[in-house]
Amino acid sequence: MKPSPTRPPTPTPMDEPDAVSDLGAPTDVPGWTGSPLVALESTLIAQGLPWPDNLATALEAQRAVAESGAEGRTLAILEGKPRLGLSVEELEGMARRGSSRFRKAARRDLAAALALGWDAATTVSATLFLARRAGIRVMATGGLGGVHRGWTERPDLSGDLLELADAHGCVVVCSGFKSILDLPATLEALETLGVALVGYCTDDLPAFTERSSGLPVPARVETPDQIAKIVRAHRTLGLPGAIVVVQPVDQAVALEDRLAREALDEALIDAERQGVHGAALTPFLLGRLRDRTGGASLIANRRLIVDNARLAGAIAVALAGTGTD
Amino acid sequence: MKPSPTRPPTPTPMDEPDAVSDLGAPTDVPGWTGSPLVALESTLIAQGLPWPDNLATALEAQRAVAESGAEGRTLAILEGKPRLGLSVEELEGMARRGSSRFRKAARRDLAAALALGWDAATTVSATLFLARRAGIRVMATGGLGGVHRGWTERPDLSGDLLELADAHGCVVVCSGFKSILDLPATLEALETLGVALVGYCTDDLPAFTERSSGLPVPARVETPDQIAKIVRAHRTLGLPGAIVVVQPVDQAVALEDRLAREALDEALIDAERQGVHGAALTPFLLGRLRDRTGGASLIANRRLIVDNARLAGAIAVALAGTGTD
Amino acid sequence: MKPSPTRPPTPTPMDEPDAVSDLGAPTDVPGWTGSPLVALESTLIAQGLPWPDNLATALEAQRAVAESGAEGRTLAILEGKPRLGLSVEELEGMARRGSSRFRKAARRDLAAALALGWDAATTVSATLFLARRAGIRVMATGGLGGVHRGWTERPDLSGDLLELADAHGCVVVCSGFKSILDLPATLEALETLGVALVGYCTDDLPAFTERSSGLPVPARVETPDQIAKIVRAHRTLGLPGAIVVVQPVDQAVALEDRLAREALDEALIDAERQGVHGAALTPFLLGRLRDRTGGASLIANRRLIVDNARLAGAIAVALAGTGTD
Ligand SMILES: [Mn+2]
Ligand SMILES: [Mn+2]
Ligand SMILES: [Mn+2]
Repeated sequence: MKPSPTRPPTPTPMDEPDAVSDLGAPTDVPGWTGSPLVALESTLIAQGLPWPDNLATALEAQRAVAESGAEGRTLAILEGKPRLGLSVEELEGMARRGSSRFRKAARRDLAAALALGWDAATTVSATLFLARRAGIRVMATGGLGGVHRGWTERPDLSGDLLELADAHGCVVVCSGFKSILDLPATLEALETLGVALVGYCTDDLPAFTERSSGLPVPARVETPDQIAKIVRAHRTLGLPGAIVVVQPVDQAVALEDRLAREALDEALIDAERQGVHGAALTPFLLGRLRDRTGGASLIANRRLIVDNARLAGAIAVALAGTGTD
Repeated sequence: MKPSPTRPPTPTPMDEPDAVSDLGAPTDVPGWTGSPLVALESTLIAQGLPWPDNLATALEAQRAVAESGAEGRTLAILEGKPRLGLSVEELEGMARRGSSRFRKAARRDLAAALALGWDAATTVSATLFLARRAGIRVMATGGLGGVHRGWTERPDLSGDLLELADAHGCVVVCSGFKSILDLPATLEALETLGVALVGYCTDDLPAFTERSSGLPVPARVETPDQIAKIVRAHRTLGLPGAIVVVQPVDQAVALEDRLAREALDEALIDAERQGVHGAALTPFLLGRLRDRTGGASLIANRRLIVDNARLAGAIAVALAGTGTD
Repeated sequence: MKPSPTRPPTPTPMDEPDAVSDLGAPTDVPGWTGSPLVALESTLIAQGLPWPDNLATALEAQRAVAESGAEGRTLAILEGKPRLGLSVEELEGMARRGSSRFRKAARRDLAAALALGWDAATTVSATLFLARRAGIRVMATGGLGGVHRGWTERPDLSGDLLELADAHGCVVVCSGFKSILDLPATLEALETLGVALVGYCTDDLPAFTERSSGLPVPARVETPDQIAKIVRAHRTLGLPGAIVVVQPVDQAVALEDRLAREALDEALIDAERQGVHGAALTPFLLGRLRDRTGGASLIANRRLIVDNARLAGAIAVALAGTGTD
């Protein structure tokens, strides 16, 4: 694979999107420039962010990947076909219609989505699965799913965790786990599952829209090249599982601890009062946090998604440059 | 594989059962008619149902598979040999002697069972493992194991769950999980493990001998052909894990909610008083439920086993008809 | 592989340790005598036992393996290189410097350890992974990691468990799980994961430095040959996961129940008071137990490590003798 850092920083709508619907290699698509590829998830468009922020963020994320010299592909299921990249028109259609039209497909829902002809945004687990199946081994997102608070009353652990355990040698760039989760329990689950965790310019696990959870990560690096070195060692050893790279949200837009905590406490109370749980819980809580923080969580959420996409692009380029990807 | 829907609806005792004891393909057995195969588990014979209902149910289940145009094979370990099918005499021997002679072997016990020469009925996890190892990718049972109630005091999650996660592309037809379990926690565990779940003519997870648990399933289908379509998509994508197909027990014999709940509460209290747990717990509770419901749970249990076997046969035929199995 | 039971019972420092640093087969090392190999873990040297007991125990363990006719290799990471065997000088260096110099690397830390040039002792999960990657399929240790007490408040399940689930057909000889753990919950976790468990001359799960936890094991054997027979059946069936062989500590040095329990209760209170948890917890508790038992736990701990190494050697010889390893 030949990196092409001079590629123009605009997302390339694919001329023949159906060409990839059979899940052939995404590099077979006519529009492909030869750049290293980065997969981007789509539930943040259909379920995570409000219109029109969702479209703007999706386009900015693709642009940020391109600025790093790689190519960002947003994955989704359209009319029962898995798609390794969406045109601008398709992104806009998903962003406008959101959850009124698009289901939220986790990895385990993919076969039903195809067989029953669903339109669906893909969660981290579904995106990572489809990406690695097609040979894309770097992905970016905002925050991963994990162990929900109150798990001793009603256990709720995201399917993202098991897909991370299965995605051998893939890199997932994020700002940790969604802050609505039980972060100490989630960190322990990651350790139990043996999923590698690396802090990018941080010793702490970030807390999504806050810079730190106060919990330590086992290894810290300062450059995309160091990450690529770890990824190569991981692949050479044949270690199972993904490498989760966590990057704190930019200081300029990060939420302050107290504000974030109070808003979250209120959002959790709202969810309990209204009996929201299951797949609906995360979108509900993220929406409440936006209201409660006067939009500050939305600004932070958008920024970290774009910055994670940029870092993922740089990692993809670093891996491609050395011929391991 | 050539489907043979005109095959007579009687179970075929195998002439040379030892021929399969080396776990060669079950289609090598002389008696094999060329019909698609369905695996049936044997703990329901040795530990789950009382004599003579257990033998009658085992024979009816094989007949129901045959009525669908497939061939049902009951799996077990006899004298340390894994058997991909039992003769009527062997079924009767197991049914008469039950747990006084036959151990209950889960997947992890299989090596000891072979090396130490056990007679053992095989649980869902052991049956599914032996079946897929021999190329049989459709199985039927009554209710699966899951997360036991009181798991925060003493965690007890059935090994069935992990085998479901490992049985890539296999189909398991059942009436959900045994109702003695913590069903919300079990449903979450299935989601965490990324195991696909499909409701057959239902939007709800059945509760074994009751028609509904009140919990939703992520996808609903109406025909065996639709199930076959999902299974083919699952296999084409290379998705991990089994596809669990749940079918509610027939309305005519289903237990009413209140009766079932009261009987279960009493059975759980009995178990705690007598300190029953581990592998002995499920047979104990099922026995108590039979007594407490005046036999109604036994009638429902028998019916759903047979109906699930019939549906599994239809799925096996649908898969064979399209050349995917 | 040719067993060589007449091999002198001294550990063989390797002439060219760097020769194995690329993780080629350990049998390529010049010093290799042709004996069956047994992997030994190194956190017991760097983090588990105090100087100079740790060095003495490491050397005795290697000698015990040799007395069985096999060859013991202590695994570790030195200056970022995975090592399938350490010289006496290297063992002494690790034993003297302990955790002041050596990190504790679990399986998921291995890529960072290599890429960032760590010196690290390898836990059970990391040792078993490196061993099986190099073709060594028998390992010995003292006690495995499992489910920590208080897991409903702050879940903490060792990554050892998942590696056991992944180490298909490997044998791990131990005295059960560290007694500081929640043993009933750990035993259930092993069953949930489908990891095979065999008692060597015992019907009970040992409790590390005590002979019995009071909890049953599903199968009991009396000889290394019987274990080899189970291992062969496991491999022939293609069953997933390791075979955990548990051996009770020698009666002569075993801790009495009451002494052990009181010492542990006090150690757990100390840990809570001082806020110790995560990777630091196990070394902390083991240290406290030594103090609280007046050194009796240290004597028992040393003895069981050596005896487990000896049994592992005998199993490796039994497997090699029949040509399955
Ligand atoms: Mn969930
Ligand atoms: Mn159990
Ligand atoms: Mn831990």
